[in-house]
Amino acid sequence: MPHIELGNDLPGITGLMAYRPETAGPLNALAEVLLRGPSSLTRGERELIAAYVSSLNQCGFCTASHAAFAAAQLPEGMELVDQVRDDPDGAPVSAKLKALLRIAALVQADARTVTADDVAAARKEGATDVEIHDTVLIAAAFCMYNRYVDGLAATAPENPAVYEFAAQRIVEHGYLGPSR
Amino acid sequence: MPHIELGNDLPGITGLMAYRPETAGPLNALAEVLLRGPSSLTRGERELIAAYVSSLNQCGFCTASHAAFAAAQLPEGMELVDQVRDDPDGAPVSAKLKALLRIAALVQADARTVTADDVAAARKEGATDVEIHDTVLIAAAFCMYNRYVDGLAATAPENPAVYEFAAQRIVEHGYLGPSR
Repeated sequence: MPHIELGNDLPGITGLMAYRPETAGPLNALAEVLLRGPSSLTRGERELIAAYVSSLNQCGFCTASHAAFAAAQLPEGMELVDQVRDDPDGAPVSAKLKALLRIAALVQADARTVTADDVAAARKEGATDVEIHDTVLIAAAFCMYNRYVDGLAATAPENPAVYEFAAQRIVEHGYLGPSR
Repeated sequence: MPHIELGNDLPGITGLMAYRPETAGPLNALAEVLLRGPSSLTRGERELIAAYVSSLNQCGFCTASHAAFAAAQLPEGMELVDQVRDDPDGAPVSAKLKALLRIAALVQADARTVTADDVAAARKEGATDVEIHDTVLIAAAFCMYNRYVDGLAATAPENPAVYEFAAQRIVEHGYLGPSR
């Protein structure tokens, strides 16, 4: 049960956003530009970073959500998402994405530990400065979304269909899509 | 030196925002509504929460910035900001603000540790549900801003005048103010 009376029974962050539309606007706008806006990283790759960071933060709702959103937009589907969550260095993703996932994990744990060597390693595998920037900001942003959801004890449905349905909505309409 | 080539020498997050205006828009909009929008918490109190969380995250640029922004908007000025950073429980702030600062610290460390008792303690001191919501989201948001700044090694000038000048600008124009 959420820590505050939301006046709705929407799951996870959607319940918080319906409760406080003033902050929902910028939060959704940030997710839209970071995860779906023009980028040389695919939408699936960006959702994968979001799911991975959410899983490091052990945020059940966000992990299930963004794992579903990533799976829906990656040719390899949920199998790859699970592999990345279990062992990012061993997962069958590009060397560039591995280097970016490594930076994302450092940002999640303690962003001050990202070194010039970590950034150089990503660049060596072909990462651009904008990709490095966006990876750091995606990781940082999910340290916010995860804390927002868990700090208010938002609900996290166990039924996978909830997240698959949300994935369809995100793929079709994005984070600024038609109101629920 | 920042980890990526920003093409500008603006300090801290302002350099990152000039580099990537697409994400700066929602980031500034979120700060504006959370820290300056209509609220029963004063702007000084909200900046104090932001400065406190930034100091827990040991983000030099954000701590100096929001300490200056809080001091500029609190009758007690920087002395109170320093007291809260050193010892929030012993600082001369209201019992309600102490309870909210305690929730903010839990969100910063691990948001899953916020309990119904912590929330009840804040309510007992007069905190409303919206105040509790906004405190959690301010704390969560600064776990993002702090990581964004430090993950990209944005510069943090040592000259206090930089932060005092920024404080004047924020007090006068807010986070959506005239372009720099």
